[in-house]
Amino acid sequence: MNAEIISVGTELLLGHTVNTDTTIVAQALSDLGINMLYACTVGDNEERLRQALQQALVRSDLVITTGGLGPTKDDLTKETIAAVAGKPLVEDAGSRQRIEQYFAGRSCSENQFKQALLPKDCTVLPNDAGTAPGCVVTTDEGKMIMMFPGPPSELKPMLYRYAVPFLQEKEQAAIYSDNIHVFGKGEGAVAQQIAPYLEGENPTAAPYAKDGEMFVRVTAKAKTKQQAAAICEPVTKEIVAILGDVVYGVNVDTLEQAVFHLLSARGETVATAESCTGGLLSKRLTDIAGVSKVFEMGVCTYSNRIKHMLIDVSDDMLRQYGAVSEQVAKAMAEGVRKKAGSTYGIGITGIAGPTGGSDEKPVGLVYIGFTNGTQTWIKKLGGAKTVQRSREYYRTISSSTALDILRRYLQGLNPIA
Amino acid sequence: MNAEIISVGTELLLGHTVNTDTTIVAQALSDLGINMLYACTVGDNEERLRQALQQALVRSDLVITTGGLGPTKDDLTKETIAAVAGKPLVEDAGSRQRIEQYFAGRSCSENQFKQALLPKDCTVLPNDAGTAPGCVVTTDEGKMIMMFPGPPSELKPMLYRYAVPFLQEKEQAAIYSDNIHVFGKGEGAVAQQIAPYLEGENPTAAPYAKDGEMFVRVTAKAKTKQQAAAICEPVTKEIVAILGDVVYGVNVDTLEQAVFHLLSARGETVATAESCTGGLLSKRLTDIAGVSKVFEMGVCTYSNRIKHMLIDVSDDMLRQYGAVSEQVAKAMAEGVRKKAGSTYGIGITGIAGPTGGSDEKPVGLVYIGFTNGTQTWIKKLGGAKTVQRSREYYRTISSSTALDILRRYLQGLNPIA
Repeated sequence: MNAEIISVGTELLLGHTVNTDTTIVAQALSDLGINMLYACTVGDNEERLRQALQQALVRSDLVITTGGLGPTKDDLTKETIAAVAGKPLVEDAGSRQRIEQYFAGRSCSENQFKQALLPKDCTVLPNDAGTAPGCVVTTDEGKMIMMFPGPPSELKPMLYRYAVPFLQEKEQAAIYSDNIHVFGKGEGAVAQQIAPYLEGENPTAAPYAKDGEMFVRVTAKAKTKQQAAAICEPVTKEIVAILGDVVYGVNVDTLEQAVFHLLSARGETVATAESCTGGLLSKRLTDIAGVSKVFEMGVCTYSNRIKHMLIDVSDDMLRQYGAVSEQVAKAMAEGVRKKAGSTYGIGITGIAGPTGGSDEKPVGLVYIGFTNGTQTWIKKLGGAKTVQRSREYYRTISSSTALDILRRYLQGLNPIA
Repeated sequence: MNAEIISVGTELLLGHTVNTDTTIVAQALSDLGINMLYACTVGDNEERLRQALQQALVRSDLVITTGGLGPTKDDLTKETIAAVAGKPLVEDAGSRQRIEQYFAGRSCSENQFKQALLPKDCTVLPNDAGTAPGCVVTTDEGKMIMMFPGPPSELKPMLYRYAVPFLQEKEQAAIYSDNIHVFGKGEGAVAQQIAPYLEGENPTAAPYAKDGEMFVRVTAKAKTKQQAAAICEPVTKEIVAILGDVVYGVNVDTLEQAVFHLLSARGETVATAESCTGGLLSKRLTDIAGVSKVFEMGVCTYSNRIKHMLIDVSDDMLRQYGAVSEQVAKAMAEGVRKKAGSTYGIGITGIAGPTGGSDEKPVGLVYIGFTNGTQTWIKKLGGAKTVQRSREYYRTISSSTALDILRRYLQGLNPIA
């Protein structure tokens, strides 16, 4: 099956929004073994969308649109597709009900229900994270048009819960993927190490970068999911063995998930003290439902006064070495562990920028302290004069590194190697 | 002038790379007042690229390509364009010299110099961050084709240092946009309220949803940016007046930015105590460089024990009302304010789910406490039986609502209206 994506949204053509939808859908299609030869973007303009659709329907079996399914007047993807496919729009009772439930107890303007109007005879793709359902329309020529809402938070669950299974049935094939998650090694270096596997046909293996981390996806196609999984297994094992201890997990969502599982298994806890990351680390830990059994306390000590008051970092030390120092990272980790009565303590102090750097302490310099109560390790990030990266980058890398230090310790590795 | 972008790269169609180049170029074009009507992506395939070029040259005055200018044999953008435009490739001495300089003292394989071959009579766009130069070719029909390398780190300086000045000379029009940021009212409801403005031509107005918030963008086109801004001004004013106090700012990036500016102006500070949001609120505040003058301390009190120990929430109260209660939200806000010695205190406690809910305290029930030291307000979110949303959604909405309560107070509005 050949597919192409049409992204609909003037904001994309004005550069107001990065088109991540296309990337998300493209990944899912390539995992399904569906070839995508084109992607295009048009504004919220009926005529140009119609032309794009007609051209796409000539050259592709599956045309996927993202965006333009909302309640407003400039949302006209569905209307245009219905016209091109010659299917009238009819209200879908289930979708109307979902919208009513969504707004239960709140005022809901009538135009919301425009979203429940779907092309006749379509397959509905429910929206578990919003109000605009997606759907699949089959044209008289047997071409499929699949519509997704624009917000990635709505598109992603719809894609993986409803659209992918739908397409697997059409393709008469099941797909299975292993995701090998890596922290502490770049996409390029990993790609070189596992180069032969990247040439594979079934399973395929491909590296993906992911905010400061990367992962390798091993994907196989077979009649059943079990068969596909069996095809992946040996290759996944070999790649994990080649990459070694930079692999923090296979099919584990995130570093924080990996840490959560390791701590839970040991019945241990961690407490965090954050300066430059300002709560990002505790935010990431508490993204996990049920994290309370391993995480009770995090403090954002954004000033010296609070570092001293909340976790007993001595004023002398802060004066002598400055807040961004090995000594203070150590004192923060040890102080917060003592205060929380947790098994482990983490302290992060650094300069996230864009300003506040100096020659001896440039933006990007971060110290991470980790203690188990008897020993404390310190990891230093940055500090060399290089191209300055964004505040967000330094904060993400710092919180990820802190999680990886704990992950490595819990796996019996040198935490700061 | 009408423009369109053709992105070249199989990695984009496999979902391995997010297409940020299109966003970067689109922003620059829209600031120049150049209309971009289409963007498309093709793989590293000569035939499909040629078709895309020919189609683009029919409908657009300016065709911009990104990617495929490198030294490898699958880099064929330049070769394909030269063929389509009927211009032979000739070596550009300056570009060859730059490549030699770039590799000075390092080994440089001969194929690197393939990058110095450019279409005859083109205008060279030097690459200050890499080896592959860009260029502008004018076809016999007077259409322009502009080529950029794929890596954003190379494209961006080339675009702003060389391409934008080149285009400014060709084009004399500018675009200006006002972004009206709204919290507490949905896209649909806002669209109904300002329906007439959504019909406008110059300025145009369009609503956009943005994780739990929305904004209205008013955009005008004129000879100069100042004139365009003058066209937007009255319409922006009217829309702000119609929407009223749900508008938290115009051309302010985020709720946290709005709060930061209001607090800075008053020389006041806030401290946060978070349970279900787990540090998300302090993370959002510390996303802002320089926030330390209004934010010194945040605590993530994820267990009752820590609520009691760190911010003096009484055990009796926790026992009697439970951690998720009006009383505890109030005690958290007052406790953290007292502890931090800040002007204001915020406490958030709730059930983010997906588990942990009950009939009287369902997932999504959140209490937010806000105190100025003399008075404390409590806002309750959720608690009604509706469709359960994601943990991420409840956490985002809770932290945004907390910020908006403070924003409203600082603007002299009823904080919990």
